[in-house]
Amino acid sequence: MKTSVSLRRFFNPSSVAVIGASRDAAKVGHSVLGNLKHNGYPGKLYPVNPNAKKILGLKTYPDLSSIRDAVDLAVIAVPARFVLDSVRECAGKGVRAAIVITAGFKETGEEGHILERQVLETAAAGGVRILGPNCLGLINTANGLNASFAPLMPRSGSIAFFSQSGALCTAILDWSLVRGVGFSKFVSLGNKSDISELDLLEYLADDPQTRVILGYIEGIANGREFMEKASEAVRKKPLVVMKGGGTAAGARAASSHTGSLAGSEKAFDAAFRQTGVLRAHTIEDLFNFALAFADNPVPEGPGLCIVTNAGGPGIIAADACERSTARMAELSSGTVAALRRSLPPTGGFYNPVDVIGDARADRYAAAMSAVLKDPGVDGALVILTPQAMTEVEGTARTILQLQGGKSKPVLACFMGGNSIRKGAEMLRSGGIPTYPYPEDGVRAFDALVRYRREREKPDPGFMHFDMDTERARGVISRAREAGRNELGEKDAREIVSACGFRTPRSALARTSGEAVKEAVKTGFPVVLKISSPDILHKTDIGGVRVNLRTPRDVEKAFLEITSNARRLMPGAMVWGCLVQEMVAGGKEVILGMTLDQSFGPMIMFGMGGIYVEALGDVSFRIAPVGALEAGAMMEEVRSFRLLKGLRGERPSDLNAARDCILRLSQLAVDFPEIVEMDINPLLVMPEGEGAVAIDARIVVNFPS
Amino acid sequence: MKTSVSLRRFFNPSSVAVIGASRDAAKVGHSVLGNLKHNGYPGKLYPVNPNAKKILGLKTYPDLSSIRDAVDLAVIAVPARFVLDSVRECAGKGVRAAIVITAGFKETGEEGHILERQVLETAAAGGVRILGPNCLGLINTANGLNASFAPLMPRSGSIAFFSQSGALCTAILDWSLVRGVGFSKFVSLGNKSDISELDLLEYLADDPQTRVILGYIEGIANGREFMEKASEAVRKKPLVVMKGGGTAAGARAASSHTGSLAGSEKAFDAAFRQTGVLRAHTIEDLFNFALAFADNPVPEGPGLCIVTNAGGPGIIAADACERSTARMAELSSGTVAALRRSLPPTGGFYNPVDVIGDARADRYAAAMSAVLKDPGVDGALVILTPQAMTEVEGTARTILQLQGGKSKPVLACFMGGNSIRKGAEMLRSGGIPTYPYPEDGVRAFDALVRYRREREKPDPGFMHFDMDTERARGVISRAREAGRNELGEKDAREIVSACGFRTPRSALARTSGEAVKEAVKTGFPVVLKISSPDILHKTDIGGVRVNLRTPRDVEKAFLEITSNARRLMPGAMVWGCLVQEMVAGGKEVILGMTLDQSFGPMIMFGMGGIYVEALGDVSFRIAPVGALEAGAMMEEVRSFRLLKGLRGERPSDLNAARDCILRLSQLAVDFPEIVEMDINPLLVMPEGEGAVAIDARIVVNFPS
Repeated sequence: MKTSVSLRRFFNPSSVAVIGASRDAAKVGHSVLGNLKHNGYPGKLYPVNPNAKKILGLKTYPDLSSIRDAVDLAVIAVPARFVLDSVRECAGKGVRAAIVITAGFKETGEEGHILERQVLETAAAGGVRILGPNCLGLINTANGLNASFAPLMPRSGSIAFFSQSGALCTAILDWSLVRGVGFSKFVSLGNKSDISELDLLEYLADDPQTRVILGYIEGIANGREFMEKASEAVRKKPLVVMKGGGTAAGARAASSHTGSLAGSEKAFDAAFRQTGVLRAHTIEDLFNFALAFADNPVPEGPGLCIVTNAGGPGIIAADACERSTARMAELSSGTVAALRRSLPPTGGFYNPVDVIGDARADRYAAAMSAVLKDPGVDGALVILTPQAMTEVEGTARTILQLQGGKSKPVLACFMGGNSIRKGAEMLRSGGIPTYPYPEDGVRAFDALVRYRREREKPDPGFMHFDMDTERARGVISRAREAGRNELGEKDAREIVSACGFRTPRSALARTSGEAVKEAVKTGFPVVLKISSPDILHKTDIGGVRVNLRTPRDVEKAFLEITSNARRLMPGAMVWGCLVQEMVAGGKEVILGMTLDQSFGPMIMFGMGGIYVEALGDVSFRIAPVGALEAGAMMEEVRSFRLLKGLRGERPSDLNAARDCILRLSQLAVDFPEIVEMDINPLLVMPEGEGAVAIDARIVVNFPS
Repeated sequence: MKTSVSLRRFFNPSSVAVIGASRDAAKVGHSVLGNLKHNGYPGKLYPVNPNAKKILGLKTYPDLSSIRDAVDLAVIAVPARFVLDSVRECAGKGVRAAIVITAGFKETGEEGHILERQVLETAAAGGVRILGPNCLGLINTANGLNASFAPLMPRSGSIAFFSQSGALCTAILDWSLVRGVGFSKFVSLGNKSDISELDLLEYLADDPQTRVILGYIEGIANGREFMEKASEAVRKKPLVVMKGGGTAAGARAASSHTGSLAGSEKAFDAAFRQTGVLRAHTIEDLFNFALAFADNPVPEGPGLCIVTNAGGPGIIAADACERSTARMAELSSGTVAALRRSLPPTGGFYNPVDVIGDARADRYAAAMSAVLKDPGVDGALVILTPQAMTEVEGTARTILQLQGGKSKPVLACFMGGNSIRKGAEMLRSGGIPTYPYPEDGVRAFDALVRYRREREKPDPGFMHFDMDTERARGVISRAREAGRNELGEKDAREIVSACGFRTPRSALARTSGEAVKEAVKTGFPVVLKISSPDILHKTDIGGVRVNLRTPRDVEKAFLEITSNARRLMPGAMVWGCLVQEMVAGGKEVILGMTLDQSFGPMIMFGMGGIYVEALGDVSFRIAPVGALEAGAMMEEVRSFRLLKGLRGERPSDLNAARDCILRLSQLAVDFPEIVEMDINPLLVMPEGEGAVAIDARIVVNFPS
């Protein structure tokens, strides 16, 4: 709520002061004032400049305090060294919103960073919120407010756009005028010292002029808050984000499988997926998707019908559709009959519907109206290539007329250059998203379908499990006292067991004699494993023996394992061997957890050691994970079929596997000290028989 | 050679007759004549129409025979029912080249199909080659020949384009004029009754006006010939192909793993990869790649340097580069020092080189010339966003000047609309491929890099192995005589063994007594497998027992296996059990072969049963496969790392695995009767120990 109130001052101020307004047309302080004056903004404007009486015909003030009335928003365009004073002035005058256009702060190095912090502290103390510094400013087309030094004013429309790159803003603005794209709000975030994408998401989600939110970001400071705000926004309108900068910021050396497979890109992908943010991988898609959302209803289902006057492009579109989550709609027999009546005999009566190269507008009209009536069709893509008989503008008009009601999304692909330009423009200004290539249209429809699915997602199914938290905390405290960051196997298993995972019966044997005794208690066959806090990859040093069937086997294995360890890792502290119940018959799964810099604990799921190591076939989600996402994590992994049972095999206990993901998620959230963890393998038994955590590794870290 | 001679008549005729020339401007026969007359074609034109004396001011002839001089090319635009007569006339007059524009043939159904065949037979008998029917015609910009009814004449340039879709031709033509794209040849293939992509590849590979060949195809009749022609063409110039129509034409039910994983798309991918054809997956890429090739030298290596005046787009480009086969060039310390001298201190001196938002043309010039001198830089992408100080046209001029020598490819991305339009046009007409988005530029550079690699590919390494072909032929003949299409396991293993594969010692036992005897001969442990020509998936019916260590084990297993088979597959003919040597210690590989409708035998490689079945992690190549492609097949599979040895494991015998692929390829080429085959598993032993084909399945088919 606080954000909405304060951002309202940025977007709907009653009065704006420009600190550093200038008569010199080459200066930013001149451009900003000009933009404010010439784009219809109805509020009061106060240029501030001690060396001028009038700028652009407006009375100019030597400083803020000499303005008698209240000032809602200040745009600061003075050199960097004067910004701090200007912000102080704002605080004194009671100005609550300031856009700092000026560059020369954090982006230039240490000195600038300090200056930026001072500005921010001064602002916070004085109750001033800051957009920037080092930004282009912002634009609200609803009230003609152009508080930026952008060289152009965008058209008015329903797309809100924010960007961490100012240059991208300028390029996009320029391009939008040619493509006829209109914006509701247009915001350059700059250094994000105060106002960030978090504030904008909250504000834009409720902005009545905005139908779709677009963002370009390079990094997120508070991932968890981003997920909350993004989820809330997505419930109200589509959010399409392009994320630039694939380099992993967190360079902490990873010692677990999970750690080495994770990375900030994986975290972003997971977070976007969980919150329903549509990720655009190219700038082109960012806007292609936005156009589709801006003017279309969300489709009822995935069925796309393609209407074309050319076979080739129709095939290309159908191919693209097959590669997407959209589906080629199956036409009803009634629709096919209607098409047979209205198209020539050589036409295509199934999807893609081919109206044939000599189609005029009337034939498109007949095909389109038949197709849009079909309940199996959830949306249509009209493809037009300019041929001898083609009525480009007539067809555009037809499409616009048919789309009066707008119960189903209609997209268009007019292919060509000058011959189709006018028709394409008519469509765009009439609200039909129009693309130059069929694939773009299909991908845009696919984005609509994916958003629909997102909105239909059932409850996330968060669950709470009873866990012996005290016992787990005890183990961690002991590790802290001992100054150990990597827990020994026994400790790790104790935590896992405290979380309610079933673990194999297991006991530490310090001598071969003890080992035999424990094996008899456990029942043969058993497994022997080296027990040492210093040995992480036990198999690498011959530290594991399975399927030991006799006391003799156990005795021999104990001696071999411990002597291997002494020989290969002479410095390691060896406690002895664990004697474990041998669990057989399950499928190997690996569960993991790692800490992402922006998003916090992230959970990993994969099949068996080899699928993870050799194939990297794993999925990630940010914790807390609900039952819905846990199920999706499992299905996302290609080797998941192994759990479902191949060739009539009995399926594995999928519910048990899902619950294990949820328990791990709960553990990760409850214990922020745990920074990396693998449960490997988790044996998932046949349906109804649960899952057993065979081995676990846990790394903890304590804030110093 | 024959093709080149006959196509020369199509592209460089001394005279052209238009059969069906018309005075009616709405008719195709009028458009064609007009296009021939008005675009500078210097040869003689003969309109043919019995009902006119003059058309478009040209003397008109009642029929071909009344033209006294020789006619090189005829364009036929009469109604479908008169086409046969016209072709007959062509033959009579000695016309060797005819473009049949007229539609109404194969594409309309059975009747049209018959008519098309008659036309083709008549033409072949009379020595007339046919382009079409049902096509737009062709254009040669070198001599102003526009023998089409396209509404526009393209600019002259170095891109040759052929398309199976006529409508795509029109759209592309229209669009090319706006984007400033020039063509050397422009050909609409229509129904490809005679002249197809095969003829064009041969002709265009040697066409001096063509620097890059572009094609849109939906299907290929003769895949093997396509591969030959494409390989030859690629040696001379880049060939970029978009393939439309992903539906599998061959619907023969597949009973092997290989068969079910293959499909015509896989075959196209394999064929394109083997021949070095660059596959474009969108129309946009088709032309983006073409533009890069048309005006640029092929880069020496993969190192791309990005020069930008905006951070965001620079990051986007770097991300795209990381996802491609191109690499971000590492700048030398000398280059970095030079950049430090010429850029402001806040600039980016590493790659991406950031000249900062206020850069004018001179700063771009300094950065570009420093970067292009760096031997680690193989090409550059210049990104420009229109900002306050940006000199769009000045920068374009700078880029063009620096690119005078053209020793390294330079591509540009000018982002925006009207502000950058003029600059982008200057670059395009000056021969710098210019894209609206950074990702397009990077993908285009990547295409250049891939083409470079293709040209540097070493010898394919075809090998010939000594095989006992007679023995294999004997087995197949016996199957033919017995009327069996699926070979029994013993027969399959005999063929595999005749090909030089090592197979486990194996003998058929008809009784449990015989089984014990054979097991003793073989040496314990052994494997028992059901032997039946009717049982393909042996494990599914409990037909395999491994690790049998005693005579007692063998006896029991024999009785269980055979009774399982009788119970679960009562109709199957059971010969007994195979007693096999148990081979241990290798890694499971699956090799397969299937027959593709267009390309013939296709070889498959994958790891183990589970990787193939559950993950579909396989690679394909068209036979014959050489050593180079066999190696690539193995590396293409993600699970290949299993063979290289994980975590210090001993690597498998990769040479043996490769030779097995080559042997299978040779078998497939030598025996066209074999239509499907799996060697599953092939156990690849540790390095130096070879590979053993454990089990094989072979399906044969005899032409009736």
